[in-house]
Amino acid sequence: MEIKVLKKLMAAQEADAEINRKFFSDMNVAAVNMMSSPGSGKTALLEKTLEALGGELGAAVVEGDILTTLDAERLARFGIQTAQINTGPFGGDCHLEAAWVRSAAEQLDLSLVDLLFVENVGNLVCPAEFNLGVDANVVLISVTEGEDKPAKYPIMFRSCDLCVVSKIDLLPALDFDMELLERNIRAANPGLRAMKMSAKTGEGVGEWLDWLRGLSASKKRKIK
Amino acid sequence: MEIKVLKKLMAAQEADAEINRKFFSDMNVAAVNMMSSPGSGKTALLEKTLEALGGELGAAVVEGDILTTLDAERLARFGIQTAQINTGPFGGDCHLEAAWVRSAAEQLDLSLVDLLFVENVGNLVCPAEFNLGVDANVVLISVTEGEDKPAKYPIMFRSCDLCVVSKIDLLPALDFDMELLERNIRAANPGLRAMKMSAKTGEGVGEWLDWLRGLSASKKRKIK
Repeated sequence: MEIKVLKKLMAAQEADAEINRKFFSDMNVAAVNMMSSPGSGKTALLEKTLEALGGELGAAVVEGDILTTLDAERLARFGIQTAQINTGPFGGDCHLEAAWVRSAAEQLDLSLVDLLFVENVGNLVCPAEFNLGVDANVVLISVTEGEDKPAKYPIMFRSCDLCVVSKIDLLPALDFDMELLERNIRAANPGLRAMKMSAKTGEGVGEWLDWLRGLSASKKRKIK
Repeated sequence: MEIKVLKKLMAAQEADAEINRKFFSDMNVAAVNMMSSPGSGKTALLEKTLEALGGELGAAVVEGDILTTLDAERLARFGIQTAQINTGPFGGDCHLEAAWVRSAAEQLDLSLVDLLFVENVGNLVCPAEFNLGVDANVVLISVTEGEDKPAKYPIMFRSCDLCVVSKIDLLPALDFDMELLERNIRAANPGLRAMKMSAKTGEGVGEWLDWLRGLSASKKRKIK
């Protein structure tokens, strides 16, 4: 009985994700779902990204938090459109779902948007289990979190297209084995590309911007 | 219909927590539930704790992870009893539940144990919603995660008896506003005691050990 309910829920999630896929294509928008533990630097990377992109590509953000609009406020300073989802009123949900993302995105004028960033709730577990129908799933893992996280949270690393290794400016202050992290990433998902980055110093951000440019260009080619 | 199911589930959780409370009292054990984001330093603090306690108080650990026994292996080196819960086979659950903790604890010889640490799955959201029937709930927040976390994840901070601010050895490498974090902790839960700590340098660990000694002594008084 319970299993039936779960299957029904998962089928509804997949149907919603499919609607999003069509919606983002119709809108000519490449959507990127950013996931990580709390405090791995999703908002800091988005700040750096918006600053670096300038007007080169139109950007907007769907911001997911249990409570507060703190992150949306940090990003709105860059003159972009933001839509906030607060899951707090719905029981403090620990993830975003496809239908909520669509509702939020529909509040934006997407005609000027090339890249729609979805900043998920800070959580290395649950968000990975919900298909949002986006063009790419990105996981951030900061070097302060330890090398073992891909082994301990493999579902997240398996569900992503890119892994950003963040806060590398802190490496001199840490005993951190980057090769071990890279081995653990490969073991969880052999095809997962990893990019080392510091939103603070800007190191590695160029590679990330190129990846975003490629994603947007590829989406536009598909639509044409 | 769905709301009824949820209420039934929550009532079952509370009943299980009550069984744990009685079980830990019968066993003369003070149980401490350790929660945080992935990589905030739960295992590192437990390593430091076991090293510092020596044989002063009997300790054991129930280790919760989606997958792997990496943390249990790190802690077993201190010659203590450990019991591993892997939630992976049950759908990769993002939290521990009272009945699982009891099953794990029942595998241990608790006659020599004063302090039973429960290391929860790394997640700042979901574990806070499950009452484990322990004597104290502790949340760790590392200074690399940012000052805003108590505002963004208030359920966790409200459900805890102690907040450990970890990795303070990294403060010189960060732009971190400790007063802002402390204000945010007080705003989420005015009664929540915060302890600043570094498991690496040992700073602040003495205060934590005193708190653990007090918890154990208070439990033994209650039982007599």
